[in-house]
Amino acid sequence: MFPLFALSVTLWFVLSGMGMIEPRTLSGFRDYPPALMIPRERLMETARRVYRSYGFAPIDTPALEYTEILLGKGGQETDKQLYRFTDNGDRDVALRFDLTVPFARFAAQHIGQLGTPFKRYHIGPVWRGERPQKGRYREFLQCDFDIIGTTSNAADAETALVIYDLMRALGFERSILRINNRMVLNGLLEELGLAGQTKSVLIALDKLPKIGRDAVLKEMAEHGVGAEQAARVLDMTTTAGSNDDVLARFERDFGGNATAAEGVRRLRELLTVARTAGVPEDFIQIDASIARGLDYYTGTIYETFLLEKLDIGSVCSGGRYDNLASLYTKQQLPGVGASLGLDRLLAAMEELDLLPKVQTPAKVFVAQFDAKYVGDYQRVASRFRDVRDPRGVIGAEVFPEPKKIGQQLQYAEKRGFAIAIIAGSDEFEKGVWKLKHLATREEKVVTDDELESAVDELLGRNVR
Amino acid sequence: MFPLFALSVTLWFVLSGMGMIEPRTLSGFRDYPPALMIPRERLMETARRVYRSYGFAPIDTPALEYTEILLGKGGQETDKQLYRFTDNGDRDVALRFDLTVPFARFAAQHIGQLGTPFKRYHIGPVWRGERPQKGRYREFLQCDFDIIGTTSNAADAETALVIYDLMRALGFERSILRINNRMVLNGLLEELGLAGQTKSVLIALDKLPKIGRDAVLKEMAEHGVGAEQAARVLDMTTTAGSNDDVLARFERDFGGNATAAEGVRRLRELLTVARTAGVPEDFIQIDASIARGLDYYTGTIYETFLLEKLDIGSVCSGGRYDNLASLYTKQQLPGVGASLGLDRLLAAMEELDLLPKVQTPAKVFVAQFDAKYVGDYQRVASRFRDVRDPRGVIGAEVFPEPKKIGQQLQYAEKRGFAIAIIAGSDEFEKGVWKLKHLATREEKVVTDDELESAVDELLGRNVR
Repeated sequence: MFPLFALSVTLWFVLSGMGMIEPRTLSGFRDYPPALMIPRERLMETARRVYRSYGFAPIDTPALEYTEILLGKGGQETDKQLYRFTDNGDRDVALRFDLTVPFARFAAQHIGQLGTPFKRYHIGPVWRGERPQKGRYREFLQCDFDIIGTTSNAADAETALVIYDLMRALGFERSILRINNRMVLNGLLEELGLAGQTKSVLIALDKLPKIGRDAVLKEMAEHGVGAEQAARVLDMTTTAGSNDDVLARFERDFGGNATAAEGVRRLRELLTVARTAGVPEDFIQIDASIARGLDYYTGTIYETFLLEKLDIGSVCSGGRYDNLASLYTKQQLPGVGASLGLDRLLAAMEELDLLPKVQTPAKVFVAQFDAKYVGDYQRVASRFRDVRDPRGVIGAEVFPEPKKIGQQLQYAEKRGFAIAIIAGSDEFEKGVWKLKHLATREEKVVTDDELESAVDELLGRNVR
Repeated sequence: MFPLFALSVTLWFVLSGMGMIEPRTLSGFRDYPPALMIPRERLMETARRVYRSYGFAPIDTPALEYTEILLGKGGQETDKQLYRFTDNGDRDVALRFDLTVPFARFAAQHIGQLGTPFKRYHIGPVWRGERPQKGRYREFLQCDFDIIGTTSNAADAETALVIYDLMRALGFERSILRINNRMVLNGLLEELGLAGQTKSVLIALDKLPKIGRDAVLKEMAEHGVGAEQAARVLDMTTTAGSNDDVLARFERDFGGNATAAEGVRRLRELLTVARTAGVPEDFIQIDASIARGLDYYTGTIYETFLLEKLDIGSVCSGGRYDNLASLYTKQQLPGVGASLGLDRLLAAMEELDLLPKVQTPAKVFVAQFDAKYVGDYQRVASRFRDVRDPRGVIGAEVFPEPKKIGQQLQYAEKRGFAIAIIAGSDEFEKGVWKLKHLATREEKVVTDDELESAVDELLGRNVR
């Protein structure tokens, strides 16, 4: 690190000496160069497709909102994490810190016209002035989907199906969904006479994977939970075993509590629907310890983990809530949804070395062997630019300058193109194209008619 | 308008009386509900595919930057259009007002690693506190593509090809690209002894379509341009005729000027490359009056118009520049590129009634006839959710509640689904599905095996 730092300090002096501005991003913010942005776009596009396949419709809301909308009337205290300022029209405004609050405002404003049930997804950046740390930035993408205007458990089951399809489509076959239901926890706490301490118990419970059993017991004691009660909470919420075992134990131990019984019934129904719909048995696991401290969850709770990267925590989390928009409207809007941690997934892929090493979205490189053929190079390139190709666009780039072929191929290799097309007067006279597979160095000369199929073959694509 | 306004005032009193917050967006900002966001996403996705097909790679940069980066060191005066504030770390920051300045900063910072030529596209929101007006917002999408690190005219020609493909892929077959070259204008002004007044002449010239010939002449006179010179400028820049005619006239009248001659040579070469590459003759028109006031353009200039909607102005504009990032680096970065006015196109499509009347991205609606079959409904829906289907995802939504079928179908029609699948005990016993085409009310009963092909047929999709 030191030499780089020294270099940048030196550079800064040089630049300021020349009256230049040092090019830099704000602390906690980052640029996405192509090598990161290509897979990031792929993740977004895949998530979008999955949401759309279930009938979730896209919406967008402004990055800037009235601070009052974002924080509520009580939120007048200074919030260090919020990017808040007074605009030129003297309004107290702030950048959104999540997509849930803007969705609540949006729903309150438009649900009369849109009608219920309403299913939406929203992919967009949010801003939080948190202390920057590895893999966490002050600007990051959220990727939320929700069904509102229904209390039906069918929507809770669908949420699990969406998460299953998301993980599969994104390429994380080895992942699991852990679910729970707040009603089960609430029933348990009611039975133990702890209903009044629900929030502090749930917050302590959430820390279990991080701080361990003893520390959780201690924290509960600090909130006035008796040692025996706390032990029973921990005991119950860490019940191990198959989903059937866990549900059976819930019913045996406090099935007499109406709230808990309804929670168990909904969990069981969700599992049945998922099984019938084709989700493999081992994808969904009931985990009674999942609480998700957030106050507004009232029913099913979801957390999703990559088996190969458990340490990054849940990559898709959410739950059911009774009332989305009570700050802005009297209309009761119950719903269920979850948020995909797209930038966290990207970081995981980076660490698992799953990111492709390419800096170009195109596969074919057309060398500029002779400047007089630029129009012809573009014409041959256009044969690989059909944006309606059902198998996806191959893409072809024509090098802009007639540099030495060696230099051009070096550029092409560095960027990650798969195939180069090379043609000069010889080839044009004979009506052929020279192809070079850049990784294997395999070369072949093909007639004009054979070009598409030869490229398909070299790319390993199925035949047209 | 009055009743609506009165209503909202009343509502506000009611809400504030209850301690609620009125749900609203900031002036000049808007929400995108599904009916607008579905076509907006389609436009973005199409643009992305076209850029990628040419080997442009995506990048992203932060929404927030140091104000110094965005305005340069001279830009310390208050700029009413800029969303600028002091963050919690006491930094002078602002929201980006375009994607060009952040790209210049990005290029200065990363070009050493990325190498040249470098082709990027960038789709993202920008913020300008302009006075809100019809179809113009304070937050809007920009959609830029550039090739930097080369002075080759091949890149200028490619820019024209990209614009042609963009317009075609976006569905605007009836559009034209008007081009010019600053070198021609500069040569003309040199010949007339007006080289020192270039900027004011170009700014006046840009206003020609809006204020007319006489007002332009007057404005030039105010800047000290003699009447005869001004008339010659206008005369030359409004030369009508075929591209060949215009170029011939340029050469005849001031071809002796080296700058103008090079401009003419580059325009002619661009046309030749475009023709050879397959762009129809009438798509590109040389228009000597196009100046684009922006100071940094030095070569080819592009403006794109929809023939059916000329009044909205250019929907894709750009040009060649000598040096992108001189504020931040000594490295000379010449380039060429353009920006697609995606939200302007969306507004045009709205006005031309080209937006589809759907509020759902899915085509198939699965009614919930009987709650006990929710898992089966999801399973049949999953047959239309293959995100890898090369013909695009059909998409299927299962209604979350077992409401009356009439109500469910009303919901489906309102949202714009194409087909409903209805099945109860009868159908499950017989192993069949009832299909209903929602627009034609056509109904048919098909066996399980026939389901996909029947849906394809009703949707008018080509057979699998």
